Parts: sequence; structure tokens; C-alpha cells
Amino acid sequence: MSLFSEKAESLIPYVPGEQPKDGVYIKLNTNENPYPPSPTVIEAIKTAVGDKLRLYPDPECSELKKVYADYMGLSEENIFVGNGSDEVLSIAFQTFFMGKKDVLMPDISYSFYPVYCSLYDVVALEIPLKEDFTIDTSDYIISNNGVIIANPNAPTSVALSRDQIEGIVAANRGRAVIVDEAYVDFGGESAVPLVNRYDNLLVISTLSKSRSLAGLRVGFAVGNKVLIEGMNRVKNSINSYPVDLLAQVGAKAAILDREYFEKTRLDIIKVRDQTTEQLLKMGYDVLPSKANFIFIKNPEKNAEYIFKKLREKKILVRYFKQERISDRLRVSIGTAEEMEAFIKALAEI
Amino acid sequence: MSLFSEKAESLIPYVPGEQPKDGVYIKLNTNENPYPPSPTVIEAIKTAVGDKLRLYPDPECSELKKVYADYMGLSEENIFVGNGSDEVLSIAFQTFFMGKKDVLMPDISYSFYPVYCSLYDVVALEIPLKEDFTIDTSDYIISNNGVIIANPNAPTSVALSRDQIEGIVAANRGRAVIVDEAYVDFGGESAVPLVNRYDNLLVISTLSKSRSLAGLRVGFAVGNKVLIEGMNRVKNSINSYPVDLLAQVGAKAAILDREYFEKTRLDIIKVRDQTTEQLLKMGYDVLPSKANFIFIKNPEKNAEYIFKKLREKKILVRYFKQERISDRLRVSIGTAEEMEAFIKALAEI
Repeated sequence: MSLFSEKAESLIPYVPGEQPKDGVYIKLNTNENPYPPSPTVIEAIKTAVGDKLRLYPDPECSELKKVYADYMGLSEENIFVGNGSDEVLSIAFQTFFMGKKDVLMPDISYSFYPVYCSLYDVVALEIPLKEDFTIDTSDYIISNNGVIIANPNAPTSVALSRDQIEGIVAANRGRAVIVDEAYVDFGGESAVPLVNRYDNLLVISTLSKSRSLAGLRVGFAVGNKVLIEGMNRVKNSINSYPVDLLAQVGAKAAILDREYFEKTRLDIIKVRDQTTEQLLKMGYDVLPSKANFIFIKNPEKNAEYIFKKLREKKILVRYFKQERISDRLRVSIGTAEEMEAFIKALAEI
Repeated sequence: MSLFSEKAESLIPYVPGEQPKDGVYIKLNTNENPYPPSPTVIEAIKTAVGDKLRLYPDPECSELKKVYADYMGLSEENIFVGNGSDEVLSIAFQTFFMGKKDVLMPDISYSFYPVYCSLYDVVALEIPLKEDFTIDTSDYIISNNGVIIANPNAPTSVALSRDQIEGIVAANRGRAVIVDEAYVDFGGESAVPLVNRYDNLLVISTLSKSRSLAGLRVGFAVGNKVLIEGMNRVKNSINSYPVDLLAQVGAKAAILDREYFEKTRLDIIKVRDQTTEQLLKMGYDVLPSKANFIFIKNPEKNAEYIFKKLREKKILVRYFKQERISDRLRVSIGTAEEMEAFIKALAEI
């Protein structure tokens, strides 16, 4: 018998976008927010850094849950908190999908989903996106044991409406439908208002994108009390305190500063739409984005070639060597200045 | 089919010690350090709180690994970093034990181990501690598929020597032997110096106890490069960034401040030994502790009764309703003043 478990021998892990350490790059590769976190977040964390770090943090994240529940118009028992939405997704896969087959997901979506399937013995039934990279909701009204959809989808940036999501949720009563809304604040319609009506809907969100807090690691799941209880059972069988004291404090402040959130997310939407317009003029194909990134295709040039050339010019974007999308690049929306530099670099290539 | 996975239905999670929110208690119930973190930790985190929180943290924790490797006299490839030693343990169970039977562990040990067994389909072979709560190392020289031992053991506080640990590791070549050293800095002998000689030894440690950083969530595994690679494969299939930016920075500073670490840990050892002496005089049975807690038994009074009475007096300790140890209390070592208050309260009960 091997020293390792069978699973540990065979896993092929997720590979995150590069985090260069020298700081000379324009980073448009990991969908981070180009704006800093709200000044109230910085202030709140600085105030919290002190003697209390010797104590374990609140394992329930009660204050944070309360603030997020208020923001969502729900109650604390509808909220699950984890170490970034990746950990929340991992726990959701364990709670709802582990050991099941025929779990539906798009063939092109967040590339961490297949990794969770492999880790938790889930057999996915991958549903091809349509030619235009949209989801045909009728594809999800078939026999299954669960559904997961990113909305807006990644790396496509394309979104379903709330009504379309509701159609899928309503058709799958008794089975968990997970909607991963990491990017919803940039123009999508959140499914959270449906949570009170559908006890099979779980919505996952994060502070990494629209709250500029990728460095702090806070994600949420929102759903019916029974679903959240199940997730807590799994979470408390792994690590009682995955969200540290400072992350709890910073996250709370971020959710409370509605004004800063509105301002920065609207700025990003504006820059995204301007960038899209410029790229369309240059002949690029750009999918209609509701996210803080765009998914683009040069009509002639090879995507990997452009990716490498941009890297030489100290601009990082994301290239996926994957069927159907290897002719495209995913480009995060930076500041107006960063996007100008990006457009200029593209023009030169 | 249920909405939940079969596992999520059946799990019985770990229950951590109470974290009261009102701050009026003397907390001797979760083995936290009574001293604040080093001033250099506070300073380093305050300096790091800023715009960089918008970016993902270094998924490799490279700088932190380097500092810890230097401290341990090893190289970076021997170090794994996780969100507290609980997450590290969880990943170690997945990496080495998942799906195996006959994994050896003491019958009385950290109560999270059986929870991991249940989550990851590990069939443990629980080896009874001897009558005096020590481990008989010869019990671990039998056919098995892995070994995990807390050293010092919890909640007993009793430790094996490095030579005794080496005996177990040497007899189990080809199978992972995990030594959980959460409490080793309070008088135990670490097995880390054996890591270069035994490719089956994994040592797990934490900054929550001897570095006063329970609130920051940083734990380590130290072992042969091949073991660490396996753990990274599992970790990167769950969450690329479980240790946030501020935790990485604070942890680095904590390891670098050797002087503060030495001073506080020696203080705790001193207070522990003084408290032990007083309790022995009062007729208590106190196991010989190498940890920052003691495991005590009143010769007459019921442990649960004392636990409740202490709680009324605003002193929290830990009581385990578990066979063989339900007549004992686990008491974390606080400051000299806190332990005086504890002794006084005991005398009154």
C-alpha cells in the first residue's frame, strides 16, 4: 500500500493565475479589483490588530453574518461564511454533491469545479454551452442529482437573468442548485431574492472581486436554513475557524460601506464598456460581459501568441489551453489607465 | 436521493471550546496563550494593512515558508502552510489516510481525529493509553496503514521523548507517521530534527499556542519533500489561498521574534509548574505536563460539578464527557494572576 491515499496520488490540482512578486506587471489575469479596499476596511482592521489575536476568532462569525444577512434582507441562519468562495465551493460540493453522479454543469465554466468533482467523487454531466457561449436553460431540466452554474459564467462573462435561473431552480426541487455569483455585482442579477422561496437554492458570493478583498479570504453561501446547517456540519468537521479575526472585521466594514462599493463597481462597469467598445472597433470579438473581465478573440491572431506578447510588455492576462476557448483571452478590467495601456499594447502586437 | 451527500447527513462535527463574547470570563478552556502576540507581529500587520489587500495573497506563502524553514534548519520544500493546524491535519488525513483502515491513534487524544476519520472514511484502530495515560510505544509496532500521535498528547498533557517517537517512526517505514506538535514548545522534544532521516515522518505545528496567534490561523506541516508535495496537491484541489496576506505577514514576524517567544513560553512553563505544585498540595491528581495546560482530577468531587461551579465564578475550563477522562478537567495555563484566581475558586468550591 502506498504512503499516500489513492486520491492524493491521482489528483490534478487547480492552477491559479500567476501572482508575480516583483510588482512590475499590469495584472489583468486574476480578476482582482483595480481599486483598493474601502478606507473604512483599512481603518477597521488596523483598530482590530492587537492583543485579541491571541484568542481564537468567533467560529460562527456571528457579527459578520448579521451584517451580511441585513445587507441581503435575510437572517443569520441563511448565511454561511468561509475562507474565500473557493473554500465555500469546496464545502458545498462535499455537502451536496459528494459521491453522486449526473451533477450538471456547463462544459465551459470555472475550472475549479472539475477539480472538486475529482476530489469528492462527483461524476459531472457537462452540458455544452451554445455556440455563442450562452447557457440554454432547458438543458438543465433533465434528470440529475444537482446543478452548479456560475452566473455570470467564467471565463465567458456571459450572464443568465434571474428569471432564467428561477426556471432552473424551480425545475429541480429536491436537488441542490448552486449559483456561483462571484461576479454578480458587475451587472448581473442576483438569485438571492429567490432564497426565501426555494429551499434547494444555494447562492455563493465573495468579497474578493467587488469589495477589493482578494487578500483577505472571505466568501459566503446564502440559502435556506437547512442547507446552511448541512454546510456548517461539514465545515465544523474540517476546521472550526477558517476565517480569522482580521478577516471577519474587515469583511464587516466592507459590507457596511455601500457608497464606496457602488462607486467602484460602477467605475469598473464604465471602464469595461469603454474597453469593449474600443476592442470591437479594432475588430475583436468580445462577449457581452456582466463581470469584471471580458473574454475576447482576435479575428486573426493566435490567442497564445498575444498572451505571450502581452507578457513581454509586462501585461498579464489569462489564457486557457482548453477546447473551444483556446482562441480567446480572459482580460480583467483594471483602471482606465491600465486598460489604455492594454489597448495600446494590443495595437502594437 | 437526498439533497445532501450521504456523508453530510451523517457527520458529527467537532465542538470547539466556548468563545464567550462578553469578555468577563477567565478563559482557561481553549489552550490559548495568556500573553499577547509579539509587538513586532502587531507592527508588521499594521504596516501590511493597505491597498495590497485587493490582490490575492501568495498562494505558496513563500516568504513565510522560507522563514520557518530557516528556523527549523530545513528547506522550503519541507514546509507546508495551512489555515491553522486543524486545516493542516484535515489535509494530512486526506493525503495519507483517506480510505484506509488500521490507522493507529491513542484512544484518548485530540478529539478532532475521529471526526476526520469519519469525514474521510478512515477506519482508526484506537490504542488504549496505559492506566497512567502514557503511550506504550510498543503498541505502535504492529501491522497498520499509518499512525497519528499528538505529542505532547491532548488532553492528557503527557509527552513522549524524541527517542520514543523515533522508535515508532523507524518501525513504520513506508507508512506515514504524523506527530501533532501543537503543544511541543512548552517542554516537549520536537521530532523535527528526525525529518531529514525519515521520509515517512510528518510533524504538524501551529502558531496558535506558543506564538499567541490563535486569531490569525496559521499552522504548518514539516516533512520530507515528497510528503509535502502530496499535501500541496490536495490543498491546491481545495483552496489556493487559505492563508491570507495579513496572516502570512504576522506569522513571519512571530517566527522571527525568538526572544519574545522564549520569554513567554518560559513564563508559561513556570506558572504551569507553580500551579501544579499548589494543586498537588490541595490533593489533586495532576498529570506531568509538557503542554500549556494541565489535566487534573479532584480525589473526591465530580469533575462536571467543579466545571459548572467554576463557570458560575466566571472561570472557563474544559470538561470532556468521555470514557476514562470524565473525572478530569483540562485547564489551560493563564497568567500568574489568572491561575491564582483559579486556585482560589477551586479552594472555595
